[in-house]
Order: sequence, then C-alpha cells, then structure tokens
Amino acid sequence: MPDNKYRIILVAAFQMPTDSRFAPPPDPSLPKEKLLANYDNVKHHLEDVEWDLHPGAIATYGDWQVENREEFCFAAAARVKIVREICESGKYDAIVLLGGGEPGFLESREITRKFDMVVTSCAFSQMHTATMLGNRFSVIDSAESHNMYYYNLVNQHRFDRRCASIRNIPYYHPRPGCSGEVYLGEEKKKALNGERSEAVELAVKEAVEAIEEDGAEVITFGCSGSFWLQPFVQKGLSELGWEIPVLEGYSCAISLAKMFLKLGVNSSGLTFPGDRPKKWRRKKTF
Amino acid sequence: MPDNKYRIILVAAFQMPTDSRFAPPPDPSLPKEKLLANYDNVKHHLEDVEWDLHPGAIATYGDWQVENREEFCFAAAARVKIVREICESGKYDAIVLLGGGEPGFLESREITRKFDMVVTSCAFSQMHTATMLGNRFSVIDSAESHNMYYYNLVNQHRFDRRCASIRNIPYYHPRPGCSGEVYLGEEKKKALNGERSEAVELAVKEAVEAIEEDGAEVITFGCSGSFWLQPFVQKGLSELGWEIPVLEGYSCAISLAKMFLKLGVNSSGLTFPGDRPKKWRRKKTF
Amino acid sequence: MPDNKYRIILVAAFQMPTDSRFAPPPDPSLPKEKLLANYDNVKHHLEDVEWDLHPGAIATYGDWQVENREEFCFAAAARVKIVREICESGKYDAIVLLGGGEPGFLESREITRKFDMVVTSCAFSQMHTATMLGNRFSVIDSAESHNMYYYNLVNQHRFDRRCASIRNIPYYHPRPGCSGEVYLGEEKKKALNGERSEAVELAVKEAVEAIEEDGAEVITFGCSGSFWLQPFVQKGLSELGWEIPVLEGYSCAISLAKMFLKLGVNSSGLTFPGDRPKKWRRKKTF
Amino acid sequence: MPDNKYRIILVAAFQMPTDSRFAPPPDPSLPKEKLLANYDNVKHHLEDVEWDLHPGAIATYGDWQVENREEFCFAAAARVKIVREICESGKYDAIVLLGGGEPGFLESREITRKFDMVVTSCAFSQMHTATMLGNRFSVIDSAESHNMYYYNLVNQHRFDRRCASIRNIPYYHPRPGCSGEVYLGEEKKKALNGERSEAVELAVKEAVEAIEEDGAEVITFGCSGSFWLQPFVQKGLSELGWEIPVLEGYSCAISLAKMFLKLGVNSSGLTFPGDRPKKWRRKKTF
Amino acid sequence: MPDNKYRIILVAAFQMPTDSRFAPPPDPSLPKEKLLANYDNVKHHLEDVEWDLHPGAIATYGDWQVENREEFCFAAAARVKIVREICESGKYDAIVLLGGGEPGFLESREITRKFDMVVTSCAFSQMHTATMLGNRFSVIDSAESHNMYYYNLVNQHRFDRRCASIRNIPYYHPRPGCSGEVYLGEEKKKALNGERSEAVELAVKEAVEAIEEDGAEVITFGCSGSFWLQPFVQKGLSELGWEIPVLEGYSCAISLAKMFLKLGVNSSGLTFPGDRPKKWRRKKTF
Amino acid sequence: MPDNKYRIILVAAFQMPTDSRFAPPPDPSLPKEKLLANYDNVKHHLEDVEWDLHPGAIATYGDWQVENREEFCFAAAARVKIVREICESGKYDAIVLLGGGEPGFLESREITRKFDMVVTSCAFSQMHTATMLGNRFSVIDSAESHNMYYYNLVNQHRFDRRCASIRNIPYYHPRPGCSGEVYLGEEKKKALNGERSEAVELAVKEAVEAIEEDGAEVITFGCSGSFWLQPFVQKGLSELGWEIPVLEGYSCAISLAKMFLKLGVNSSGLTFPGDRPKKWRRKKTF
Repeated sequence: MPDNKYRIILVAAFQMPTDSRFAPPPDPSLPKEKLLANYDNVKHHLEDVEWDLHPGAIATYGDWQVENREEFCFAAAARVKIVREICESGKYDAIVLLGGGEPGFLESREITRKFDMVVTSCAFSQMHTATMLGNRFSVIDSAESHNMYYYNLVNQHRFDRRCASIRNIPYYHPRPGCSGEVYLGEEKKKALNGERSEAVELAVKEAVEAIEEDGAEVITFGCSGSFWLQPFVQKGLSELGWEIPVLEGYSCAISLAKMFLKLGVNSSGLTFPGDRPKKWRRKKTF
Repeated sequence: MPDNKYRIILVAAFQMPTDSRFAPPPDPSLPKEKLLANYDNVKHHLEDVEWDLHPGAIATYGDWQVENREEFCFAAAARVKIVREICESGKYDAIVLLGGGEPGFLESREITRKFDMVVTSCAFSQMHTATMLGNRFSVIDSAESHNMYYYNLVNQHRFDRRCASIRNIPYYHPRPGCSGEVYLGEEKKKALNGERSEAVELAVKEAVEAIEEDGAEVITFGCSGSFWLQPFVQKGLSELGWEIPVLEGYSCAISLAKMFLKLGVNSSGLTFPGDRPKKWRRKKTF
Repeated sequence: MPDNKYRIILVAAFQMPTDSRFAPPPDPSLPKEKLLANYDNVKHHLEDVEWDLHPGAIATYGDWQVENREEFCFAAAARVKIVREICESGKYDAIVLLGGGEPGFLESREITRKFDMVVTSCAFSQMHTATMLGNRFSVIDSAESHNMYYYNLVNQHRFDRRCASIRNIPYYHPRPGCSGEVYLGEEKKKALNGERSEAVELAVKEAVEAIEEDGAEVITFGCSGSFWLQPFVQKGLSELGWEIPVLEGYSCAISLAKMFLKLGVNSSGLTFPGDRPKKWRRKKTF
Repeated sequence: MPDNKYRIILVAAFQMPTDSRFAPPPDPSLPKEKLLANYDNVKHHLEDVEWDLHPGAIATYGDWQVENREEFCFAAAARVKIVREICESGKYDAIVLLGGGEPGFLESREITRKFDMVVTSCAFSQMHTATMLGNRFSVIDSAESHNMYYYNLVNQHRFDRRCASIRNIPYYHPRPGCSGEVYLGEEKKKALNGERSEAVELAVKEAVEAIEEDGAEVITFGCSGSFWLQPFVQKGLSELGWEIPVLEGYSCAISLAKMFLKLGVNSSGLTFPGDRPKKWRRKKTF
Repeated sequence: MPDNKYRIILVAAFQMPTDSRFAPPPDPSLPKEKLLANYDNVKHHLEDVEWDLHPGAIATYGDWQVENREEFCFAAAARVKIVREICESGKYDAIVLLGGGEPGFLESREITRKFDMVVTSCAFSQMHTATMLGNRFSVIDSAESHNMYYYNLVNQHRFDRRCASIRNIPYYHPRPGCSGEVYLGEEKKKALNGERSEAVELAVKEAVEAIEEDGAEVITFGCSGSFWLQPFVQKGLSELGWEIPVLEGYSCAISLAKMFLKLGVNSSGLTFPGDRPKKWRRKKTF
Repeated sequence: MPDNKYRIILVAAFQMPTDSRFAPPPDPSLPKEKLLANYDNVKHHLEDVEWDLHPGAIATYGDWQVENREEFCFAAAARVKIVREICESGKYDAIVLLGGGEPGFLESREITRKFDMVVTSCAFSQMHTATMLGNRFSVIDSAESHNMYYYNLVNQHRFDRRCASIRNIPYYHPRPGCSGEVYLGEEKKKALNGERSEAVELAVKEAVEAIEEDGAEVITFGCSGSFWLQPFVQKGLSELGWEIPVLEGYSCAISLAKMFLKLGVNSSGLTFPGDRPKKWRRKKTF
C-alpha cells in the first residue's frame, strides 16, 4: 500500500547550468531513473520506498563540477536552501544527500531535526557502515583538492583512527584552463561497455596497496563520480582472492535513511540543538 | 511474496533450565511473539521479514541468569554452537543475537562470514547507531559486574572516546545466596501496569546526570533485562524537555541485520579471516 | 616607513542589512576604528600594520545575526566570495577573518594559498595559542546551537583532547519569534559603564567551574559577541587568585597573521592543494 | 624453606584428546618438566617457586589445535571451569595461563580475585612488559585467523597506540581438510637440531621489517606455538646488529605472577567486581 | 648462596646538606635499614637481594627539598652523575631510583643500557603496575608545582588515557619564605603513633573522590614524601568497602627491577640508543 | 623609539670549553651577529627588537657537543641557572632558548612565569607552528640518540598524533672515540659555498619520503646543527614541485616570543604553578 511507504527525496549536490562547457545539465525530460547516476546499482534499495530526485541547485560559482573547498562551500549554501524548502513542503520523510563530499550535511542535520525528518549523506554513511564491517577502511578518491577536503570529513566524523588512508587515482573533473586530461566519465563508459578501463585497474591497484600497506579492511569511495567503480573494484579484488567489502555512497546513505526512519530516530537534539531549546547544558565535553 | 522475505532468526543469550529456582524457562507452548521479550516494542521491525526465535542454549553454569564474566563465557560457548548449527542448516539469511552483553558475538561473526550470512547483536548495534546520532552516548546498565563486563565491550568495539559513561541502576538478577533484592522484572510489571516504578525514575535520573555531567547526547541500555525501560526513559526525558534519542538493543540489532542483508555485506574477510584464506597480509596495523 | 608595513584586511563574518529589525548595520560614515568591535582591546596589535576593515557580506538568510549551522553556511559562502575578491585585488598581504565561528575559514585557506597570502581566524587562533600556554583550554560561549557548531570546530582543528569544555552562558542574539531575552550587547554596555553585569559574573563563574571541574588551564571565547568579556573575565579570575591566561579571538588572529607573514609561511600546499598541483601523493594518512 | 615458596600452577590452553589425528595429547607419564613446552627457556623462572602443570581441558570442538575465534571460545569456557576448580582447591597462590591467545583470561581475573589469587597470561604479560622497554612493540604470529583474534586482544588490553604491527609468518596448525602444509613444530625440531629453519629466517625477516617499517622497538610473539622462536630471533637480530629485546609469553607471565604475589596485589575490585560488592559506583568513565 | 643474589642499589633523589635549615641530612652512622624511608613497608622485597642505599647527591640549589621543576632539574643532573659512577663501578646489577618524581630516570635508562644494567623508578613503576590491575589510576600527590611536574611524567610515560586524575592534598615541603605550614612528615609521625592524622583523612577523601568522580580503579602516590600513606589509605578504603589496590613507589620499582633482571631484559636499544649504534633506523614513527 | 622595543635574549644551549678538542668555543671578540648561527636566515626577525646573545653555560660533562640524554640533562641544569639569572637581572622581556633539543625549556617556563616573562624554544615552536600549517609534520634530525630524545619531546608536547615521523640523516657531532665521520658542519660549508652537499641531498630525500610515505605536510628540523639546511631543503622540495612549508627553530622561537609579548601572555599559572599559589585545584585531569 503506497500510503505506508517512506517518502524519500534524493538531492544532488549541485547541477550544471544549461550552457555548461564542462558537464551536461540534467535533462528534465528524463525519468528519475535515468537521472540518478548508477541507478542499476541501487535500484533495489529504492523499490520499497516512494522516491523523488531533486537535481540540485544550479552551481553558482561556474559551469564546472565541484572539486575544491571553495566550490563545496557554494554548493553547500545552495543545497541547504533546498533542504529547508523540502522540509517545509512536508512532502517527505527523509532526505538523502547525493554527492560524495556531502556539501551541507551538518547544516541539513540541524534543519531536518527541527522538522523531525531524517537526512543522510554519502561520506558519513560509508564511514559508519565500513567501521561496522572491519577495523579500518580506506577511501578511493580522485583529485588532490578533493582528497584533502575529504580528509577533513574523516576528521569531522571522528574516524581518523579508523581511516587507513585516502588513496588517490589521478583523475579530475574538467574545469577551465585544464586540457588533455582523461576524465572518469570516459573510463566509466569503457568499463560499462566491457572494455579495459585504466581507472578500474588503477582503483584496484590502489585498493590492494591500501589493504597490504595501509591496513584497510573495507574499501569505500570519496567523490561520487567514482561510485560507479564499486562493482568493478569488488570484482577485481575478489578475483585476486581478497575477501573484502567494497562500499559506495548511494546505497549506504539510502540504507541508513531507511533504517533511521524505521527506528524512529534522527539526530540528537543535544548535538544539533534548536535555536531556543527547552533544556540546555552548562557544559559540553569531548 | 513471502518467498522474497529475509529469513532472520533471533537467538536468545541462554535459557534457564526447566527447574530453575531463579527465573522461568521459556514456555515452548507459547508462540514466538509471546516468547520474545518486549515484542510490542519491536514488532514493526519484524513485519517485513520471516523470523524465528531460538530460545538459546540451556545455561550450563547454574539455574540463574548471566551476570558476570564467567557466566558470559559459558553462555558464549553454548551459543556459538547454536550459531554454527543455524548456519549449517541453511535456513536463514541472518542471525540476531539477543542479550545485551552479546555473548559469542565476535565468534559468530567469524562463523557466519564463512556461510556468507549476517549476524548482529545488541551492544554493537546500539553503539554504532548511537554514534551516528550524537557525539557521545551513555549506557544505562545494572549490576557492577555486568557494567565492567560491558566496559570491555565498549573498548573492544573501539568506542572508548565516544562512550560518555556507563551509569548503574542498582538492580541485580536473582542468584544463589542473595535475598531481599528488588528485581528489574518486578519493576517492569509495575511500569507496564501504569504504576510508579522506582527503576524508571532511577533510570531517568541517571540519564539526566549522564546528559548534564558526562556529556551524553544519546542514551542506550546495557543488559537486555533493562531494554523494556526504553520507552519509559524516552518519555521521561522528553517530559523534562531533553530532546535526546533513547535506543535499545533489539530494534537496533534487527535494523542493522536487515540493512546489511539489503546492502549485501557482512563482516570483512580481513577482519574475520577464514582458516585458510586465499590471500593473507604480512602485517596488520592499528 | 609605511610602504614596508604589512597590509592586513579584517573581514567581518557578515553585516546586517540596512533595515534589520534585530541588529544595526555598520555605519559607513564611521571610521574603521569605530566599526571594529572592541577596538581598544586590540589597537596595539594594529599599530604597526596598514589595516582595513571589510564590513562583511550582507546576510542573505535574514536580518538577524548568525547563530546556527544553517546561518553559518550562508555566511561562509558569502564571505568566501569576498575573500577571493580581496585576493584578486592584490592589495593585501593577509586576511584576518573576524567572527568567532570563523565561517569560511578552511575555504579561505585554500583560496589565499593560491595567492600566496595569509589568512587567520578567531577559533583557530585562540585554540592554537591556548595550547601553547597550558595543557587544556575551555571555551566560554553562548547559545546552544552555537556551542555545538563550535564543538565541530574543535574537532576539525583536532583539539578534542585539549579542549576541556565548552561552557555556556545563556545569552542569545535577537532573532524572529523570540522575545523577553537579555542580550549580551546590553551587558557589554553595562560593563563598559562600570555597572554590574550579570553576564560578566556568569562568565567568571563558568570559567571557575571550567578550571576546577573540567581541567581548563587557559580560557578562550567562542562567539565574537562575547570577546568584549575578555578583560573582565581576566580581571575577575585574577581577583579570585587564579593565575590563568584569558584569550580572545581578534588579538590572537591578528597576531598569528603577522607572525605567518614575518615567517613567510602560509598553509601547506599538501593540506590545501591547488586544483592541478605539480606533485601529488598516492596516499594520505592520519 | 619450601613452605614459604609461592605455589603456582601453569594451565595449558587446552589438551588434545587421546585419539587426536592432528597433534599428540600430553603424555601423563612424563614429568611436568617434559610436558611444559620450551621448559629450558623458562626453568630459571620456576626454580624459586613450587609449581605444577595442568594439561588443560580436553578440546571439545575437535581433535585439532585452537586457531580461530570459535575454537578459542570453546577453549575459554573449558579452561574457566578448571580455573574455578583450582581456586576452590586452595592449593595455589597463582595461576599462569599458558597459550598465546590467553583464552579465558578476563574471566579468570574475575574468578581469581574472588579468591584473592593472582592470574596472569601470555598476551597481557608480553604487551605490558614490552611497553616498559620501548615505545612500541610488534607481534610475530602465525595464521590469519589467529592474527585477527590477537588484534582484538591488543585492543582489549588498550595497546592499539603501542602495538606497531602484527607480523604474520605463514604457518598453520594442522586441521581437517588441509594438507601439504609445513608446521611450526617441524621447524622447531630443525632449529633445535641446529639445522637451518625457514621459520626462524622468516621470523627474523618479519622482525626486521617490523623494526624498519612499522616502528617496533620490542619484539613479542602471538601464538604460543611460536614461543620457541624467541632465542633464535633474539640471536638473529643481535647478529644483524639490532639491539632490541625479544620477549616470549611464558617467562613474562610467570614473572608478572611472581611480582604480583610479592606485591600482594591482584586485579582491582572495581575493574573485576564481585557479584554483590559492598560499594558500587554510579558511573564508569573511559 | 649470597653470590647468586642480585645486587641492587637504591639511590635517593637527593640529600640535604649537613646544615640544612629545612630537613635533616641523612645520618651516615645509621644502617641502611634506618635510612631508607618506610623500610618496614618494603623490607620483604629486599630480603632476597643484596642491596645498598646511596643517600643521593647533595642538593645544589639550596637546603630545602625538591618540589618544583627547577629543583628537579638540578636533582636530575646531580643524580645522573651518580648513576654513571655506579654503572662504571661494576658493583651492581640494577639501580632503583628513589623519589616520586624520578629525576634523571630517562637519562639513567640511556646510561644503564650501555652497561647492560637495569634501572627502575617510582612513577614509571607505579603507573605500569597500576594499568595491569585496572583500567585507570589516580595519583595522590601534594604541592601544586609537584602535581603539574608529575602531570608531565604521566604524559611522558604515555598514560594520559589511563590516568584518571592527580588529586592534591595540600601539604608542602618546608622552604624559605614559607611559614605556618603543616608538613607531611609531622602527619606521618602522628599516623605511625596511632594518632588521628588529617593527612590520612584527606588522602582517603581524595581517593574516594577519585574513585567516584574521576574513574580511578587503582590508587597510586606521586611525591615519595607521601608513600608512607599507602597502608593507611589502603586500610581506610577497605574499611569503607572499596576493594581497590593502593600502590606506592618503592615496592613497585624494586619489584620491576627484580623482574627485569630475572627476565634478562632492559630498555630497548632502539628506544635508548647508544652514541654510535651498529644499526640505525631511517624513520621513527609514533 | 628604541626604548619601546622588546628586549630579548637568545641563550645558547651550551658552549664548548676553550680547550675543546671537538668544537670551537664562541669567540668573545665577535659581535653577536657573528656568534649567532645562521644569522642571515633570521636577522629580519630581530630587526625590530633589542636583542642579546648569551653564549650558554660551559659544558660540564666534557668538551664535545650535546647529543644524548645524559648530556642534555647536564646542559639543562646549567642553562636553567642562566635563565634564573637573566630573570633576576630584570633586563629582558623574553628569553629565546637556542638549541634544537631545548634543554631546560619546561623548567624555564616555570621560572620565567614567576617573573612575568616569556620564554620559547625551538622544538616547541616548530611543532606548534607546523600544526597550524598542515595536518602532520616530520622532523629531519641527525644521530640516533638525538632522534629518540626528540621523540620524547614530541610526546611531551603532545604531538604524537601530529608528528608523521622523525627522519634520520646519518651525521653525528664529533665526540671521543669516534673517527672517520663526516660532520654536518663541513656539509654546511660546502652548501654555503655553492658546492654539492650530500647532507642537503639526503635531507631532501628523507623529506620526500616523509611526504610520500609518512604523511608529512610540513617539514621541520630537530638538532639545531641542522637548521642551516632549511633554505636548501625548501629550495630542493620546491624544485621537485612539492609545495610544502619547511620550518627551522630559531625563526619560529623568536616569532612566538614576540607574539606572546605582544599578546601579553605567558604560560598558564595552572600549568606552571608557583611554589605557593593563591589558588589550587583539588584535581588535575587529562
């Protein structure tokens, strides 16, 4: 009975303007299943919920994809507005923030709690899931600037003792002033076509180093542009004989959102207090 | 379609022998819904799965309930046998270990992984869920010996920096040589009857101290004999104005089991290796 | 010789719109010395530099002051734009971010490094200075939501083991829907007039508790709206016999900026990498 | 005067059943000096005490040696019974638990404290001794499953920041379904005969890697089946010029037991409380 | 046979000059048993060794006892010379450094290792022993300056996560310019005479607070001038019903020295390298 | 106006006796600018202050330079006397302790605070500055014994989680009984003459390993005898494309001293208490 299903909206980290020179904007004529990246990998997580996809706010800093801290900050502010609007609409039970670097996540937790709603995101969800499966995890990620932004996320979520490493595969998103680069999107096409993909090979190689050198017992991904690698890296490691879970962000974030909904919990009001809480604490300790 | 539902078996930590002087054995004539403690609190988590209840192995150390490390050790060994039998039966997808002190959990993770099955338990699941909701959690627990056994679980799951405190409410399970004690079971009856329960009041009081003094932002429970307190403590804290999630073990453990099943993951093979793994690591680091 | 002086611009966290109901906008007819809060407390740090004051971006979320995570996010995005403009202007050697919650600081570090410029901010600077003076510091701060936002800053700057506590004094900034509250600004006026100020007394009381109960050996402040308390709390503690340094954000941030300039250093390019760095690391560890 | 000597009983981790296909049971006709493995390495620690050797409980899970968590759990439960019997016999002052993985150690601490007796074991004793000699130690161990079981011991004893690594040498105990493997016992015979032993060479090689790569400043051993390596590895490292202590479990455990006896201490009653302690604590913190 | 006994020399932290106004110098006509403070408490640890007592170097900074960092530094330098002389004499197997603040201990480890000798001291030995008995320990100590000097020792020995607190009892050693103070030595006399001692009562009170508030599970002492309190505090806590080990420094330090001798170990040569070690490491990690 | 300038005295760690066989004593006929090592590298930090150079106390342990813990202890005691004399002279506002291993620093903090003076030193100042610039730093240092002494400084200053590694370059100071060694001083001459210096090349190589393998994001130096390497290593890394700050001790220590003076702060009186403080704390926590 549809009425009983949880209503979840997935919100992209940002969308490209229509005239972007570097990446296509979402095509509004497409169904949500086509708009959601790697839909096939996560569709079984969406079967038992009512879901929508918000294409994200149009990037305000330019017509290329988010990669560095500055761009993440703009994306966060733009998405936070959308989160508030969604909350105020009353149409959803939970928000799943797409995008590996989870711009606006902590702010969204503060907002959604006021509406008694759930919000999850990809870095948070992968890290928490990973530490339930093994002692330490590594992150496969691309772009130096993104790596170090993600480094802060690991610290912020308090996983510095559980994160074995962030391993870089040298791909970038296209941006002004850069040319002659191979993009992950192209590698994805090759891989999905069954062709040899250097990105897959590099990711497997870095995962193996993470296992053997850094102490990783679970593999995760950083940038959502690399989430498509998950089944390929899982397969590659299995074929080498490594029995290790490989996670990606969408499935983890959707799963945790559904779990929180079913448990009837969201963020603690002491961690994300309202503006004028009934009770307050004289001290906060660490 | 029932065939598609996950098959989960809940396994009690132990069962009392039929002639126990201190606690009743499970009544085999009762339906599982009656046998599962606090069923009403968790039934919505079981609606969409096929589930069974295993009453646990008969206690080998005596006819009283598990409270100290020695008794937990015997309970663990007895339950680990059951876990293996369940795995070998091929009848289930996941095992949920009941019992707050999770005897045999790490061993069960090792065993279930070999069968590509999922296992979760109550302390592990509460702690991981709690740290997704707030910075630090406290544990309401009873019996000094159980508190300190649980202290080891917190360390073992690597939450010493996230556990604000274990707060003791001074109730014990009946055991030989002790008399004149008030038991939690009696308090539960009072509370469910709508009567004033000192245990509820004490639990709320300790939770408030945990919040104000220790830095707790989420409340959890230790011994499963105290899980019934969850709605009462949640209500008590809400009435005082504290907006804080209160968790209990069964719902968290069932929820995580379902999430792992849906994600298709279980423990890392590097964390819980098989006896002769295909690949092994020269070094393990922390 | 003025030409040799460092050129530093102080950038407010935000400015109120001209028609704000809750707080006055900066008066453009005033000299910078009047616009900079608590100028008398920090003027000796500005005597040997050329300095300007940027009034901050006009708040985009409303006409009240920043207090919660959502508002901080908007303030960050707005200030980051100003930081880039300042960098591109080539007119300054360093930027000092005013505002206790340092919105946009990490992003500004990324940007300024590309221009070989220095940036500092108030939370970062107080925390680092404090740990040079004593084993642990506490933070006097107001507003629950701000406390917990600041809690994240402590974690992000990796001071969870050095921060003894965040101590709350129950004052808020005026905002819609709240009435009958006493504001810190009014307490400041009283204190500067030599009248008894309850805020001063509460701050001293919380500082003493921080010393005696939490282990603080240095006192700092959170919200910049409380920086004026610094000399009063220093005096109050001294009169009680406590020999403990009391810091505030502006002086620490200006001092560190000047020190970095003189040392010729700014953020590491490995910590805040450019978009296409010449050298990159395969792995990042914690 | 013998009457004054401490009475210590060494308790094996388990014994093989008489018809074991994989390892010989202890020969009851042999004197304790022949039954105790590597007696020559530790006999000087036993000269000034009265000592006995308990051959351990017969393995309940099969006729092969303990290697994985499941088997350790069964061994723990079986040995805990023996520990209680020994305590109740009143014949000893201290129990030394043999076996590198120390099955049943924490439970035994709880039990022995009730009898005002001392108990020590091999992992605990090596780790504590090692951190008195150097900043960090490594563990030479065999079998992936045992390595990761031992990993938990390191965490449980709170040495994750002091353990540089667990280094694996690829030997297993014989078990059903495995063939063609070289066992450590055979290597031991070679080494004791003065022949070249690959196990010795591998252990030295891993110890050198632990020193040069992982930061080990002390070397210890995991599985008691590898304790015989201690003098060989000590010699090997010395010949290479490395001035580093190499410890093994029996001597450390016996030494600590004697020290505790002489100091008149055993485990804290707050850490291992009795069932109904006279005094209890409202809170336990980390 | 005496020839086989270990030869241990106990070295006082310092001695007062003969004309000291504040504390008596050691009387050279007295036997070592009279010169060693609290000999009755530790004599059973010295029965099976050959031992001597070195009265320590004459204080170079004045005629009062060591209390602050400055004085500890002078005491360290003076004692280090004695340690070297003892090593060069070849007359001893081990050195036990008396004095709670262990001046010169790390330097002595470096020196003694070159001579293949053992050295232990009181803070080090108490802390290591304490963490073998319980999760966390507290320190009863006197004098603010000494407390904070000891705080550094706790950090240096890496026990910041295991030390629950340093609890101050407000006694000082006599020094110039101070009058009207009650000294611990006077309290000791009262206590040994069976009279009521306020110092004993205060120490018990602080120990109880350490247990109930700070999480101490073992009690230790800081300044050696307070070691005499050990049996009184042990008795006081026992009478209150607290089952907690109370340690003091001399017995722990002597015990560890004997254990190291028997094990044939001393400090790692990687931790305390010689001046021109045969092998060296390119990197040292934490 | 010179009268207003801060008066700072730099104090060498020690000076060689006039007849030293191993290193020249300071030439008293030289101006301070010639006596201060690497003056050209730091002179801009001294332009706006009145400064003096104290040549340090004559080494009491021999006629070679400080390298190991024993020698550092003697140097500390000797320098602490000088620090007190300087304080008592009333002629200076701050003391900057030269020497990479900062002998006597903690003691000097205690003394200077009593005189309301500032003191800084090289290890402390580099470490604090480094962690303001990047997540982790490495130390380039020479001599095994000095490396491990420095290891303790890292722990004492609480930077074990921020120090990526101490990297050794195999140079020693000349000392009795050693011959045929190449000294850093000779390498310095080569480098300053524009010749190829193996020390520079090794330092760059170790810095690169620190970056790539250990996770260093800032480079610092240990022994002050290696501070001259700073511009060479900075240049070498820049030429390789690494954008990483390289610090040295003198400039950091002078800069922090000036910053503390301007801020009007010195060490907390709770961290470095006086002998009879007006207020004291019952407990100290970590």
